[in-house]
Amino acid sequence: MIYLDHNATTPIAPPVLEAMLPFLREQYGNASSRHDLGTVARRAVEQAREQVAAAVGVQPGQVVFTSGGTEANNLIVKGAAATRPPAQIVVSGIEHPCVLEPALQLRRQGWTVAEVGVDAEGVVRADTLAAALRVPTGIVSVMLANNETGAIQPVAALAEHARGAKAVMHTDAVQAFGKIPVRFADLNVQAMSLSSHKVYGPKGAGALIVDKRLDLQPLLAGGGHERGMRSGTENVAAIVGFGAAAELAMLVLDAERERLAPLQARLEAGLSQRGGRIFGAGAPRLANTTYFAFPDVEGETLVIQLDGAGFATASGAACSSHHSGPSRVLLAMGVEAALAGRAVRISLGRANDAAQIDTFLAALDEVLGRLQRLAAIAA
Amino acid sequence: MIYLDHNATTPIAPPVLEAMLPFLREQYGNASSRHDLGTVARRAVEQAREQVAAAVGVQPGQVVFTSGGTEANNLIVKGAAATRPPAQIVVSGIEHPCVLEPALQLRRQGWTVAEVGVDAEGVVRADTLAAALRVPTGIVSVMLANNETGAIQPVAALAEHARGAKAVMHTDAVQAFGKIPVRFADLNVQAMSLSSHKVYGPKGAGALIVDKRLDLQPLLAGGGHERGMRSGTENVAAIVGFGAAAELAMLVLDAERERLAPLQARLEAGLSQRGGRIFGAGAPRLANTTYFAFPDVEGETLVIQLDGAGFATASGAACSSHHSGPSRVLLAMGVEAALAGRAVRISLGRANDAAQIDTFLAALDEVLGRLQRLAAIAA
Repeated sequence: MIYLDHNATTPIAPPVLEAMLPFLREQYGNASSRHDLGTVARRAVEQAREQVAAAVGVQPGQVVFTSGGTEANNLIVKGAAATRPPAQIVVSGIEHPCVLEPALQLRRQGWTVAEVGVDAEGVVRADTLAAALRVPTGIVSVMLANNETGAIQPVAALAEHARGAKAVMHTDAVQAFGKIPVRFADLNVQAMSLSSHKVYGPKGAGALIVDKRLDLQPLLAGGGHERGMRSGTENVAAIVGFGAAAELAMLVLDAERERLAPLQARLEAGLSQRGGRIFGAGAPRLANTTYFAFPDVEGETLVIQLDGAGFATASGAACSSHHSGPSRVLLAMGVEAALAGRAVRISLGRANDAAQIDTFLAALDEVLGRLQRLAAIAA
Repeated sequence: MIYLDHNATTPIAPPVLEAMLPFLREQYGNASSRHDLGTVARRAVEQAREQVAAAVGVQPGQVVFTSGGTEANNLIVKGAAATRPPAQIVVSGIEHPCVLEPALQLRRQGWTVAEVGVDAEGVVRADTLAAALRVPTGIVSVMLANNETGAIQPVAALAEHARGAKAVMHTDAVQAFGKIPVRFADLNVQAMSLSSHKVYGPKGAGALIVDKRLDLQPLLAGGGHERGMRSGTENVAAIVGFGAAAELAMLVLDAERERLAPLQARLEAGLSQRGGRIFGAGAPRLANTTYFAFPDVEGETLVIQLDGAGFATASGAACSSHHSGPSRVLLAMGVEAALAGRAVRISLGRANDAAQIDTFLAALDEVLGRLQRLAAIAA
């Protein structure tokens, strides 16, 4: 099997698992316990906090560990709203459901939700956001890189507008982290979400990076863990893995970007030659993500056929695969619904190489040929 | 090191870790992905759901996986409140902070919080709850077994009153599960919280067991995982571990209870002989939990000295060890503050045996003797 779905999740890097294993075996202490076993766990959590902090250029005290990106996004949206008078929350039309849905839940408390559109390449324009900010706004959330198209958003510029409107600015950096440099200060935001399992760390860990002056109500209240911002017994092994994965990701970041860019070009040239349309091709994009459609082939069908041929790809985002129907992201970009329903995502990772791209394109030829013959028989 | 702190956390049972490892290695798929790797992950999550469901006698569809007990408790308190008009929420005075704190957060939405007291043995009395229910009440939450004293609460009887008052009845069964039989239907509740790492499963997994007719707003909104009740990429390995741990816990439950009861008696006889006072001794209690104090020795000091002698114990609950000061649970039981500050908890588990109890009591003699000599010098 050749795995081409790294935006859905990544395998745990072997050194990351090695770092985790002691905490799944003999070092099983609760990090809040006062005895020696607890102290070892506490030190490991704090070391991971330093690793994650270093990877995004913040102080360790700015890292609030969560169970993952979804929790980090729910924490910022609901936690910031709970400490502010109801107003407007602005999210982009291409946000992940775990930003959009908590925003919609806020309506119950008197908030209004504005979704700002994107251009045809899937990028939020600063003037579009500025227009939305004419209404009194408490929170703005725009992701750093889109999970479907890979389009990178001008977050720092957007944050300038949000700050001008005295709104809290958050970015969901789950897909960007580990793929492009992500420096909290450069992004000019007050909060940023990260996830471990997108960067070759384990599932079950993530973080909300916060400006310490940000007033936030905890989503998980209780024993007062994470400086009161996120209660619950620390998932020590997962946090340790997240720390190791973050550190490793920074070590290989530049080399991986340089290695992946020509693979992406090779893949997209091959897709275009075969009549595929690449979405967001004109946007600044992650080097690993290619989102495309063939006008005559259902995305779902293509994914299943490719799976049968030994290639793991995705139609739309795995995270919202409970929802079927055309991609919200593509609809926001103005892609017609029929074509949007045909989208397939390939997201490359560390194990992929040029030979695999060629093998994939050959397999694609076979699959497309077979589907065309079937369509001809049916017609 | 002899570990006597199983109510804080437990080691992962070796067969549980074996069940998890494939999902930390080659089976790294996102359970929402449509390709083969995703399908394997999905099947594993659903098998774990069946295992957890079977352990508490419910249908798999009643299991909502969470990141742990704290999330499950926050989900029920906030999720039930969000779908009901503000009213009173009743919690017992010995609830874990991750029930009490979310309840207190509800005041912002117009709820009032009533804490019902316990008797001198740490048990909530049905008539005390009935009195509190004279005020219109939306939610009642009383734990099944207390984490500090091990006192088992008459949840089914309390639920009868709560249902009579048309309130949602929840029980936090985190400490009871795996130590006494826990059958959802017998408890007569509409929701129940469980945690994996208290039953020799990994940290990072838990569940809210729900009556499917219960109206609940998700705490983590987003991609629609867990039938829309808890979004976020499933922590497959941890969930698989939780399932295996739940199954194993049921297999050994009766034998462990029978094995631990005489150990507890032996320990408590030894403590009493040395002048120790056992809290909640008259209550029906978990067979693994002993909470005690020596009138002249600070709990914190004793825990540190015992740690130095190779025994891991706890002063108060690890989960709230950020909070120092006397145990809220003991104060609720009417124990004077000075004595409550001296409490030490021993919670036994699968690896403990009678020889360890004797070794512990011998070490305790040495520690107490040393502390008495030090006190005499200081006086």
